[in-house]
Amino acid sequence: MALVVQKFGGTSIADLERIRTVAGRVKRSREAGERIALVVSAMAGTTNQLVSWVSEIGGPHHDRAEYDVVVASGEQVTIGLLALALQKIGVPARSFLGWQAPVETDGGHGRARVRAIEPASLRACIEGGQVPVLAGFQGISPAGRVTTLGRGGSDTSAVALAAALGAGRCDIFTDVEGVFTSDPRIVAKAHKLDRVTYEEMLEMASLGAKVLETRSVALAMQHGVRVQVLSSFADIPGTLVVDESEIVEQQIVSGIAYSRDEAKITLVGVADRPGVAATIFGPLADASINVDMIVQSVSADGETTDLTFTVGRSDLARTTGMLEDMREQLGCKRIDADGEVVKVSVIGVGMRSHAGTAHTMFRTLAERGINIQAISTSEIKISILIDEAYTELALRALHTAYGLDAA
Amino acid sequence: MALVVQKFGGTSIADLERIRTVAGRVKRSREAGERIALVVSAMAGTTNQLVSWVSEIGGPHHDRAEYDVVVASGEQVTIGLLALALQKIGVPARSFLGWQAPVETDGGHGRARVRAIEPASLRACIEGGQVPVLAGFQGISPAGRVTTLGRGGSDTSAVALAAALGAGRCDIFTDVEGVFTSDPRIVAKAHKLDRVTYEEMLEMASLGAKVLETRSVALAMQHGVRVQVLSSFADIPGTLVVDESEIVEQQIVSGIAYSRDEAKITLVGVADRPGVAATIFGPLADASINVDMIVQSVSADGETTDLTFTVGRSDLARTTGMLEDMREQLGCKRIDADGEVVKVSVIGVGMRSHAGTAHTMFRTLAERGINIQAISTSEIKISILIDEAYTELALRALHTAYGLDAA
Repeated sequence: MALVVQKFGGTSIADLERIRTVAGRVKRSREAGERIALVVSAMAGTTNQLVSWVSEIGGPHHDRAEYDVVVASGEQVTIGLLALALQKIGVPARSFLGWQAPVETDGGHGRARVRAIEPASLRACIEGGQVPVLAGFQGISPAGRVTTLGRGGSDTSAVALAAALGAGRCDIFTDVEGVFTSDPRIVAKAHKLDRVTYEEMLEMASLGAKVLETRSVALAMQHGVRVQVLSSFADIPGTLVVDESEIVEQQIVSGIAYSRDEAKITLVGVADRPGVAATIFGPLADASINVDMIVQSVSADGETTDLTFTVGRSDLARTTGMLEDMREQLGCKRIDADGEVVKVSVIGVGMRSHAGTAHTMFRTLAERGINIQAISTSEIKISILIDEAYTELALRALHTAYGLDAA
Repeated sequence: MALVVQKFGGTSIADLERIRTVAGRVKRSREAGERIALVVSAMAGTTNQLVSWVSEIGGPHHDRAEYDVVVASGEQVTIGLLALALQKIGVPARSFLGWQAPVETDGGHGRARVRAIEPASLRACIEGGQVPVLAGFQGISPAGRVTTLGRGGSDTSAVALAAALGAGRCDIFTDVEGVFTSDPRIVAKAHKLDRVTYEEMLEMASLGAKVLETRSVALAMQHGVRVQVLSSFADIPGTLVVDESEIVEQQIVSGIAYSRDEAKITLVGVADRPGVAATIFGPLADASINVDMIVQSVSADGETTDLTFTVGRSDLARTTGMLEDMREQLGCKRIDADGEVVKVSVIGVGMRSHAGTAHTMFRTLAERGINIQAISTSEIKISILIDEAYTELALRALHTAYGLDAA
């Protein structure tokens, strides 16, 4: 009998009525012949409430170990309630807290990493005909303290559990129907993908298509866990995230993602000598400021050059502040900052074996008069930075250009 | 340096502001030279909310083990927040969940009994200069599952911790200033007792003066833990609950308690033969109906007698229903039920060595024209049942008669 891990997020279990709906759904899965293990998040809104209490009472530099104790209480409520709802409709069930499974993590409180899930007790529960209901997002550190995995950590819990149990599939129930070729709120012709590869999903996840948390996709790829993203409200198949070998007819481009969380900084007239980049980016890295795209123009006079790069929008003020302090040392004439840019990316494993993908992108944008401010590429992705005002225009044009429009 | 366990209930930590107030109070205790271990409840209202969710989703016969998982989440929030509030004002602190201490209980989910608290980890925390903040009300069963101790269980947690650590005192912070000679809302001249014995406190606790949970008093008596009941809002000494030997000038009567949770049932004309009482009270005991006072009148005709007893008011309808079913079998003429009675008790260890205490009671009530419907006594307590309408009159008259009125 196939074993499936099902994970339900906060909106899927936001109140008692929805918890009952989830229980009903689990019962139907069992009646269809599947053995089920569950992973759940806290009720929508609960975690934010708890986090705000922690910040208010503990200040900005609070003890992350105590943060974890407070925040992990949210899942404790939902696993108990879901187990009760299942029992009520005749499905034997039992809750497991992170420390009970146990879900072993490192000691990185607030964003701990899962080291292992001991499968014995959960497996015994399943083999006894019960449905184990595991608290997502939480684990136990080597010191025996409560840890949490950071935002979206329940996805990681679910994939790790599927790997530990050798499950045939990990279903991630969410409030969207699956992974789309682009954001359907902007691109009306976007359609749901039946399948997408781990690599593509990774690029999409890290680019703002917030369907699955990046770490969970990486973990699924590492352990070969087949993941399905699907809606907890509609009873239809979602998108399967699988190995490339499982996808027969591969599109060149699978999707067009975008991220508004970008800000561009240009250092005008930086001395063009070795070590300048290290001088600039070393302190930013030390301050945990993530630098994404970096473009250095060719030096015209052989002495100075312009350097453009992007950071997260919320880091913009802090970054320019740090750079102003270094300006003389860098011999830099001027610092330009622009918080109104967007990063648009075309993603597809098919582009590895196909020339001309970048050309299509540049031509399409040029035809619409959209100026490209920076470019970065990976094996399966091309990202460009443009003026935020052109976001919708660019997404729709590219969606059509790559043949993704729904029939 | 003296070690004191301090327990703060739900109203004392009902919001972030009050949690900060508690933290400040703990800091002052430390500065006054005390070493502190803390026990806290959930925020006022939280537990009720969680219990109602469990009932709504799980129905009346839900799994008590899952009930415990859900309900124990309340203390998890407050221990973390209080630890953070302490750290914020420079007091090193660390939270402990029931399973972390561990607080070992039996497997009686929903009202588990504490078997032992392993003091090693908490003691190490204290010796390292930190304040341990233990979640009250919860523990871990031999099967490794979360348990809760039932209503008022945090008092028991605190006393058990004080016993385990060999603490000099266990301070129970609450929303009253201590134990009073009677209910101050009724008896304006009631005053706070400086000291009261375990035995007296036990009688008061079980008689509706809901300051301390009965089990916690019994546990304190068993282990000789000195308990102080005091207000978390006023900075004044409360009432010390101690062994009789610690009380120098013992009053004959320490307090006058009352309980409105009483209902009287009279079986008129029951056959006066051996085994009748067993026939009546056996089935009630099986149905978990607690029978308190029992009065059997002397048989006038040698064949039938009247039997009066009391049950909790909420059990009245169920009890009379059961008795009606047995009426023929009992040969009973009539069943009278009265839900409008109150039990008034005078309590004092001094009455063991003093004659005339009961006489004072009966005379005082007779002078006010108050009819006594039933009497029961213990070594240190006399309880009488009267018409509920006379509650206030009786309490005030007795308070004066026993010389308890504040100067």
